[in-house]
Order: sequence, then structure tokens, then C-alpha cells
Amino acid sequence: MAQKTATLYGLGIGPGDPELITLKAHRILAAAPVIAYPATETGDSLARAIAAPHIPPGRTEIVIRTPMVPGRFPAHGVYDAYAAQIAGHLDAGRDVAVLCEGDPFFYGSFMYLHDRLAPAHPTVVVPGVSSLGACAAVAGAPLVSRADVLTVIPGPLDEADMADRLARSDAAAIMKVGRHLDKVRAVVESLGLVDRAWYVEYATMEKQRVLPLRDVPAGAAPYFSMVLVARPGDG
Amino acid sequence: MAQKTATLYGLGIGPGDPELITLKAHRILAAAPVIAYPATETGDSLARAIAAPHIPPGRTEIVIRTPMVPGRFPAHGVYDAYAAQIAGHLDAGRDVAVLCEGDPFFYGSFMYLHDRLAPAHPTVVVPGVSSLGACAAVAGAPLVSRADVLTVIPGPLDEADMADRLARSDAAAIMKVGRHLDKVRAVVESLGLVDRAWYVEYATMEKQRVLPLRDVPAGAAPYFSMVLVARPGDG
Repeated sequence: MAQKTATLYGLGIGPGDPELITLKAHRILAAAPVIAYPATETGDSLARAIAAPHIPPGRTEIVIRTPMVPGRFPAHGVYDAYAAQIAGHLDAGRDVAVLCEGDPFFYGSFMYLHDRLAPAHPTVVVPGVSSLGACAAVAGAPLVSRADVLTVIPGPLDEADMADRLARSDAAAIMKVGRHLDKVRAVVESLGLVDRAWYVEYATMEKQRVLPLRDVPAGAAPYFSMVLVARPGDG
Repeated sequence: MAQKTATLYGLGIGPGDPELITLKAHRILAAAPVIAYPATETGDSLARAIAAPHIPPGRTEIVIRTPMVPGRFPAHGVYDAYAAQIAGHLDAGRDVAVLCEGDPFFYGSFMYLHDRLAPAHPTVVVPGVSSLGACAAVAGAPLVSRADVLTVIPGPLDEADMADRLARSDAAAIMKVGRHLDKVRAVVESLGLVDRAWYVEYATMEKQRVLPLRDVPAGAAPYFSMVLVARPGDG
């Protein structure tokens, strides 16, 4: 009979700099016989690239290939199949560590596996440094303090809704800016917030760029980009 | 003449479990000749307790004693004095690592030192695992995904404002619940969100407690407590 005692780990591996992994995730990664990670349809995996220095040789690797279609409903059939594959390892007594960019539960795809596997398998979620904290750190821009309200807004939100939410926040982060860059800038400028707005792409990675939003050329930004509207100063 | 080349570090040391510090913060902490950390007026310091296993003996320690008065304007004179003390070490060529619970720019006091010192001294902010990610992880509750809007709300917000912001969010985190517990619960219940609401205190610490909000006894909660309203499922 199978042991049924193996553990599923959702490992936050941080925003990009391999040194921003936690000691805990590092320890679990060093011991897990099976690792799994999201990748594009062609097999490129940012999560695996971030964790690469910490992955010992000879591990079983499961490449979770999913279509990157912004906003589209996740491919449930695809996740069903990967969850079954992972469950096979767990049932055979092998721990499985799923690598998650940033933090597992902050705009990640790990939740689709968690929903399917956590009810029947011991599961440990290891929080990680999110892109939000990373972007604020590299911009040198304190995000929130004391009684500030912070709103985290996805880039695809429509212009009026985005403007309304921004206007009602002390600070905001607009995620997944990508092709929405010009819209985001128009909204920020219309509210008179551009003096507090930073643009960050690939935070903590080698190709990181940090600019005041007003200095960013018009056009599209990469998917891994964020606009921060920092809190007003204390005057 | 003084060297003026030393670096001020704002080190995110994570939410409580000493193993949730990053490799980067761990490395910097091992090398810094001077460490500083916030403490209560009596000298108790959660930040130092979290980092304790990683602090080598024989370091110069600066205990930043500040009054814990919720909502009150920070004691600017106090921070001026500590900033001057830290600047003295930096000017003498000694790096200073400031320990920050969670993430330095996410509801932390490091910004008061950053504002005073970063303009004149090389400064590196190392992001950390925030209490937000930690609470979601220990509750096993995916926070946000895809096009969800997340609102982070301080507990002291008044009831009508809190209700309005909660009603307009896909997911929310209410920070610093403390003595506002009963108000927060009343708001969550009035909006019909209690089935998705978790209460977490001291996330990732030994005395951690995680409960569905509806099961939490009435009364006050500790300062380090949070209520999460998780995203609705995908159905």
C-alpha cells in the first residue's frame, strides 16, 4: 500500500534574485526528490531560472506547460493532469516541491494545484518575497505606513475603474502593466499622482529597470513590470 | 577624513519564523558590524527576536526605542536622534543593518530612517517576506490571482469606509486588527463574506493561531493579527 505521507510544498522562491529565496525554501528545495514549476508552452521557466543555483542535480523535474493568455480562464484540464502526475509521486512517498515566482498565493498559478491536491495530501505553503516588496525596495519608495490603505490593481482593469480605485488609495501597485502602460500612465497623470509614480521592470533581476513613470517611453512594457504609486510623504 | 563609503541596509527579516529570512539578508546580517532594530519603550524587540539565531556575537547594537501609540504621528525628534547616531557609524566606515519585521517598506518604521539617511548615504533595501504572504500561507488561503483586486486595509479605519472598501475588492487583508476585532467581524458579516474570512495571529511564530473568523471569540486580538478575506473560488 502507498505511504500517503509525502508532502506537497508550494515554495515561494522570491522575485528574481536567487539570493532572495528564504532559508526555509532553500532547505526544502535541497531535499525534495521531485520539483515542479510553471513554464511557457515552449518550456521556458522563469521560476526554474530563479531557483537554478539551488537545485541539486539528479532530481525528477515536472515542467508545467500552460498557455500564457492574459486574462483567460485557466486551463482546468491541464491542471487536472498535472495534479494527477504530482499525486502519483506523493502517493509513492516522494515529496514534491512546486516552485512559485514571488509568493505562492500572490498572483501565482500554484493555487490551481493547491485547490486540487491540498484536500487529500499534507501541504505546506512557504511564503516568499513578493514582486510588490521587491519593486518598492529597488525603487527606494516606502509603500505604506501606519493607517495607509494600499490597493493592488491588475493592469487590465478598465480606465475608469482604475482611476476610481487609485483616487481612493494612499498607495497603489499596478501589476502586470505590459501592454497597458500608456493607459496606466494616462490614469496616473489625470489624477496628478505622477510625482509619486515609479515604473519597475524585472525587479531584482540582472535586467532590472527602475524609472520615474514620467520618464518611461510610450508603448508596451514587459509582462513583469509594475507601476507603484508611493504614499505621500509626511511633509 | 571619514570614508563616507559605508552602506545603510534595510533588512527585511520576514514575518516571524527565523527560517523565513532570505539568503541575502542572512549574508548581510552576518557581516554587518552594527545592527539596529525597533523596540518598545521597555526595550523588547520582536525584530531582534526573529533575527536572533542569525546575529553573530560581539556586534554593536542600536536599540531604537519608540513609543507604541497606535495612529499617533511618529516621534520625529526620536528618529532624528537615531538617524544621527547611525550616520555617525556610516561616516566612520561601518555598515549598519536595520532589522525590519516582514518587509521594510510594508507598514514598517524603517521609512523614517530611510527618509533621513538615504539622501546622503549609500542605501540598500532588502525586501522580505511580508505578514500578508505569511498569513495567506498559514491559512492555506490563496489570496489573489489573475485580474483580482486586493485591498490592504488598516484595522483602525472607520466601519463605513472599511465596509465600502471590502465590498469593492476581490480579496482583502485587514492589518493590525487588535482592538478592532469586533468591528472587523461585524463588517465582514454584514457583507456576507464570513465564509471566506480567516483570522491569523502571530503568523509563522510558535504561538501562531489560525481560525475561521467566525470561530474567533469576541474581544480584542493581539496587535500582530490579521483578517484575510480570500478571493472567491473559481466555481
